[in-house]
Amino acid sequence: MSSQTQISPGKLSMIPLFYIGWSDSVLSPSEMKLIHQKLAKLDFLTEDDKEYLIRWTDPTNPPSDEIFKEWSNIIRSHKSLLSQDQLKSLSELGLELARNATNYRSDEIWKAPKTKAALLEIEESMGIHNSESLRMAIGQSQNESASNTSASFDVESLRRYLDGTHIEIKERIRKLLRDPVFAYANIVEKDAFRKHTLDLVKKFGQQGIGGYAFPKKYGGQEVPGGHIAAFESVAFSDLSLTVKFGVQFGLFGGAVYGLGTEKHFEKYIEPMCKAELLGCFAMTETGHGSNVKGLETTAVYDHHSQSFIINSPDEDSGKEYIGNALHAHLAAVFAQLIVDDVNHGVHCFVVPMRNSSGELQPGIRVEDCGYKMGLNGVDNGRIWFNNVSIPKDNLLNKYGDVNESGEYVSSINSVNRRFFTMLGALVAGRICVGLGGISASKSALSIAIKYGLKRRQFASKSGDDEMLIMDYPTHQRRLIPRLAKTYGYHFALSELADQYVSADTEEAQRKIETKAAGLKAMATWHATDTIQECREACGGKGYLSENRFTDLKADTDIFTTFEGDNTVLLQLVAKGVMTEFRESFHSDGVRAVIKYIGTRFSNTLTEYNPFFRRNTNAEHLLDAEFHKEAFQYRKEKMLHSLSNRMRNFLNRRIPLHEAFLKCQIHMVDMARAYVDYQVLKSFQRAVVNCNLEKERALLEKLKALYALTILEEEKGWFLENDFMDGTKSKAVRRMINKLCQELRPDINGLVDAFGIPEELLGAKIVI
Amino acid sequence: MSSQTQISPGKLSMIPLFYIGWSDSVLSPSEMKLIHQKLAKLDFLTEDDKEYLIRWTDPTNPPSDEIFKEWSNIIRSHKSLLSQDQLKSLSELGLELARNATNYRSDEIWKAPKTKAALLEIEESMGIHNSESLRMAIGQSQNESASNTSASFDVESLRRYLDGTHIEIKERIRKLLRDPVFAYANIVEKDAFRKHTLDLVKKFGQQGIGGYAFPKKYGGQEVPGGHIAAFESVAFSDLSLTVKFGVQFGLFGGAVYGLGTEKHFEKYIEPMCKAELLGCFAMTETGHGSNVKGLETTAVYDHHSQSFIINSPDEDSGKEYIGNALHAHLAAVFAQLIVDDVNHGVHCFVVPMRNSSGELQPGIRVEDCGYKMGLNGVDNGRIWFNNVSIPKDNLLNKYGDVNESGEYVSSINSVNRRFFTMLGALVAGRICVGLGGISASKSALSIAIKYGLKRRQFASKSGDDEMLIMDYPTHQRRLIPRLAKTYGYHFALSELADQYVSADTEEAQRKIETKAAGLKAMATWHATDTIQECREACGGKGYLSENRFTDLKADTDIFTTFEGDNTVLLQLVAKGVMTEFRESFHSDGVRAVIKYIGTRFSNTLTEYNPFFRRNTNAEHLLDAEFHKEAFQYRKEKMLHSLSNRMRNFLNRRIPLHEAFLKCQIHMVDMARAYVDYQVLKSFQRAVVNCNLEKERALLEKLKALYALTILEEEKGWFLENDFMDGTKSKAVRRMINKLCQELRPDINGLVDAFGIPEELLGAKIVI
Repeated sequence: MSSQTQISPGKLSMIPLFYIGWSDSVLSPSEMKLIHQKLAKLDFLTEDDKEYLIRWTDPTNPPSDEIFKEWSNIIRSHKSLLSQDQLKSLSELGLELARNATNYRSDEIWKAPKTKAALLEIEESMGIHNSESLRMAIGQSQNESASNTSASFDVESLRRYLDGTHIEIKERIRKLLRDPVFAYANIVEKDAFRKHTLDLVKKFGQQGIGGYAFPKKYGGQEVPGGHIAAFESVAFSDLSLTVKFGVQFGLFGGAVYGLGTEKHFEKYIEPMCKAELLGCFAMTETGHGSNVKGLETTAVYDHHSQSFIINSPDEDSGKEYIGNALHAHLAAVFAQLIVDDVNHGVHCFVVPMRNSSGELQPGIRVEDCGYKMGLNGVDNGRIWFNNVSIPKDNLLNKYGDVNESGEYVSSINSVNRRFFTMLGALVAGRICVGLGGISASKSALSIAIKYGLKRRQFASKSGDDEMLIMDYPTHQRRLIPRLAKTYGYHFALSELADQYVSADTEEAQRKIETKAAGLKAMATWHATDTIQECREACGGKGYLSENRFTDLKADTDIFTTFEGDNTVLLQLVAKGVMTEFRESFHSDGVRAVIKYIGTRFSNTLTEYNPFFRRNTNAEHLLDAEFHKEAFQYRKEKMLHSLSNRMRNFLNRRIPLHEAFLKCQIHMVDMARAYVDYQVLKSFQRAVVNCNLEKERALLEKLKALYALTILEEEKGWFLENDFMDGTKSKAVRRMINKLCQELRPDINGLVDAFGIPEELLGAKIVI
Repeated sequence: MSSQTQISPGKLSMIPLFYIGWSDSVLSPSEMKLIHQKLAKLDFLTEDDKEYLIRWTDPTNPPSDEIFKEWSNIIRSHKSLLSQDQLKSLSELGLELARNATNYRSDEIWKAPKTKAALLEIEESMGIHNSESLRMAIGQSQNESASNTSASFDVESLRRYLDGTHIEIKERIRKLLRDPVFAYANIVEKDAFRKHTLDLVKKFGQQGIGGYAFPKKYGGQEVPGGHIAAFESVAFSDLSLTVKFGVQFGLFGGAVYGLGTEKHFEKYIEPMCKAELLGCFAMTETGHGSNVKGLETTAVYDHHSQSFIINSPDEDSGKEYIGNALHAHLAAVFAQLIVDDVNHGVHCFVVPMRNSSGELQPGIRVEDCGYKMGLNGVDNGRIWFNNVSIPKDNLLNKYGDVNESGEYVSSINSVNRRFFTMLGALVAGRICVGLGGISASKSALSIAIKYGLKRRQFASKSGDDEMLIMDYPTHQRRLIPRLAKTYGYHFALSELADQYVSADTEEAQRKIETKAAGLKAMATWHATDTIQECREACGGKGYLSENRFTDLKADTDIFTTFEGDNTVLLQLVAKGVMTEFRESFHSDGVRAVIKYIGTRFSNTLTEYNPFFRRNTNAEHLLDAEFHKEAFQYRKEKMLHSLSNRMRNFLNRRIPLHEAFLKCQIHMVDMARAYVDYQVLKSFQRAVVNCNLEKERALLEKLKALYALTILEEEKGWFLENDFMDGTKSKAVRRMINKLCQELRPDINGLVDAFGIPEELLGAKIVI
């Protein structure tokens, strides 16, 4: 320690900060300026100290190699201080260095809380909040520290906060799923796997888990939102079971309850909840998937016999991909309702498929869809109806009916509006699928991150332990931003599920439909991406079926397609966002809407502060207001330019359909921007509402990482539109790296907070 | 046609061009300026015409809605002209309009070739080369035209050009694979599937298809590069078969031939080629995958018995994921060669695994790896050796041996260099895997594109036919750029395969190793991405196993990991690229290399023409020189900034390993830029070398789409680094849309040119 005896404690106290500031070139000019200003005010520094230090705040004049080596030597000679667990910051190390400077040992100023606070303030303004970067800088890799699995926060508290509104249901189901009955069966042959899955769905029925969405008087549990919470939790286990659970209680049960009336509830709900009465949801046809309006199955009313004749006119109008098709007693069949040759549009009918001993009814043909990429525990099939006669009462008649005189009647006059109202009953399904994708992402991240905290590969130098792969910057970059995004979607979808329950106006419902469509699309794409990255992050081990990625990948793959193809959904979202403005006019004209959007954005634009364009200050980059502004700006500007394009085309007498077609790519882009903005806002609210101090601080950091990750993914757009300049987007990248590094010690806790029972993770590599 | 009788033929001739130019807002200011200049020179226009037209070349003064509607009406009233097949351009339509103008019918000028040429020149400078955009603009969707499956070029000629050097082998194998014996067996149970796959590999052996890489005198076919061509072609069929083929003839055969000597060739090559002698390639261990140098299996020389003792010291040092492990007679085992307690590094040994009746040898334990995500026709296993003694002769002794006195001898002194020389033998495997991924991408694209040309969904208005999904701009955007990239990787990997055969210096070999590592990584990631997008583009049908995506996805998933983890490989590439410069110095100092890179780039930078930054001219955007410059600039600038970072760290006495760690993310980014540049150059050479006129023109367009797609994917970087401004990156996006639209009529031909036999596509939806 002889070399630094000539260096004053004032200088020593700042050396760790300066060393890190310069070694990674992480400091932007504006940050340097801030340090400069703060330095000048510190009373524990001598004038000589200040002069020495201020010299190194000039970004155009970096310290020479000699100076740098001197700093490096000083820190290295105190390497041992870094392993002390209490030493959490660069300023504490600086204070230690100052206190250890023998010449000045008596000086009390280095123990004063005020000094510590002043140093910490500078450190924080540099955006370096822990000692990880210092460890990196002096070549001491993180695995030497003890913090691989411990967390700086209370995992259980965060878990409870994440569970949210329906914590009891979630806890109950997770507990139930730990029962050995639900252990992964790994059955390859589909018929055996389907039987196994059906048995488990019946167990759910016996446990009352299928009844949350239905009133007690019909045999349900009557917990609004409870079904969604149950679906989300079941999705930590086998996804065939999850989907089959969703088909029986969500889709079939939901169709009966959402589109039917009293007479149907009394007859069907209770045995459906118990899974004694099995149902399927027969909407999609081979020829018509996304275009539900174009379904070809017909239900022709015959007044004489008071019945409907259900018919599939040709091979392509057969129902396809129908889950439960091979076991269902009843089918909720969507068909064109025709009375006296007039088509009143798509309605839903209860069609008996099988008798109680499982034999098919006459006129119904069922074919197995065969093996699928995944979800082979679900019996998907094709169904054709050959003039099957069903009683008039089997029409689910909430929104349309045939009266006693044999005339069609409905409370909703417009065929179009009736159609969309009926489809609105699907919204819960979309929230479920989105959450299911996020549950699967959580499983994948838990496995990959825990493996990354066990697996070592390559040593710094021979003789050393090999490094934990989680300590490689590329590995952190692959997993930690995706963890942050998963938290974001979790909060957005959870909030949406709560809003879904409390929505009481048509306008609120419409907004929820738009959000649900958008979040379903973005969350399931996120799941596909995340599970893939996690598989790759586990290397060859990730490819072995024993480590679960086989099923996670294959089972969730269809999430991007079912309950609405994602690309089609995003176009609905764009139309929905544009339509939101219609209310302000009480007008149906698309032009008026579009014109209004134009005006609105011009106002927002003017308010935008151009100073931010090149602000690379750490505080600014982490600022929630900055994030919100960026996300909002992107959404608004895209909406503005989309409506301008639409207006141009319409002005030129290009038909509406063609105009939409020419704007299709823009619509999808705008919808993505809209969803990102919704997720950010939910995440911000979730942080604000968190009453736990440490946990809130951590969520704050995760949220910043989420926001900056999206900013980086979309930096092409932000740069193109001059929202930020190149210096700033580079600063965003560095800040992401920094946040990954800072979150590194807590990631094990962050995945533990998902509360996935070890039995359900089901990956040999992390046991 | 009364409305346009007042409009002069000169004006009419230009109206289609102006209508399209303005309707999509696709024209940039600089393009407008060019049109302005050209207009002024046209002698077939009256002064009045010019005045009228020039008014609409001012970007700040768009035509009014009234003018626009007038133009629209004129074109619509001649809608029928558009369905004529000979009408391929906007200028032809303009000429027709002029000729039809009754008042001026006598004017011969509208039939003169000179007039046509002048109009076409303007059209081309606008970058609108066909009538598709016009059809779109007036709301006539493409499916009304007949060009769904016909192509503007000769598919067979392009197919032959793509097949390249080893066309005979490729044709032979594709013919063979059409034999019903090779029909997809769809066996779910792994043991039966493995047996089936092994039988087919034996058939390959009987057909001599395993012997291309080996000399005739040892029983091979002796076609340099033939094995790679065979692998690429087999990869159009089942990928378990492909991988098993690769393990037996490529990895095992390649290890014996690449690392062994005469005595081994004589003994093993012939029965190996016939697949009578089955082998496996036992390199990876549970504990050591990427870090091959750290393998723990030992081969201790015992001079007394003239033998090596092969041993797995613990559970984690067992070999893992070894293909053929459950059937192989021999294993090529990589182990640390130890003589008299001195470790000479990893060498390869032939270890007898089973006798001819298939019984395991004593001391060897084998475990089945069980089900995997895919490739379940391959018997991957774990292998442990418990002090297994093998004759001294079983060391594959090309690069290192033990002499008669029991001393280790090698022609390569450095342990490190010896290690990398031996690993160099793996390069063919990496080229194979890259090509295998591209073959799978070709299969996926063929299925998705053909389905997109059959599947209809949603009609423009009720009563109309529903639209082909391939005519949706979003759908084109999903598939056509990926088709262009697939062509790019095809050319890059094919060229590399040829270079591999002809490389005759160590330097050339090293460059090939770098390229192979990089292309393997990028091509396999491209495959994962493309297959996923194609699956989603087929909706629910894509999820049914009968449509092949199940296997394509699951089987290729491991391609990103095996033969080198992609992220690790890209770091090797970065090191390789940095090391290329070392030769210029004959120095081993990393610093010298890094310094040299710095200087070199400064020169390139100066040469860069800043005028291009905002050039949005169509001609410029399609210019091969512009593409090359952009790709080169990105690679060079990243290399420059990476070496600067490295130098800074090293100057500050940060150890080399840590410095690499701190630059890890930059290294991966730079390696990606390097690979993109290589692909572009190969693609450009492939276009130049193509002697077929129409086919070359088409490839030219595909290549431009490839280049602009990468520019768009990386636009964040290009904008950040001020290589282009926002206006230009928006122009790039529009040009991509335009190219997709222009290529749309030819995409069926472009996938047919891959030459995949229908039997091998194996997707019910496209039969």
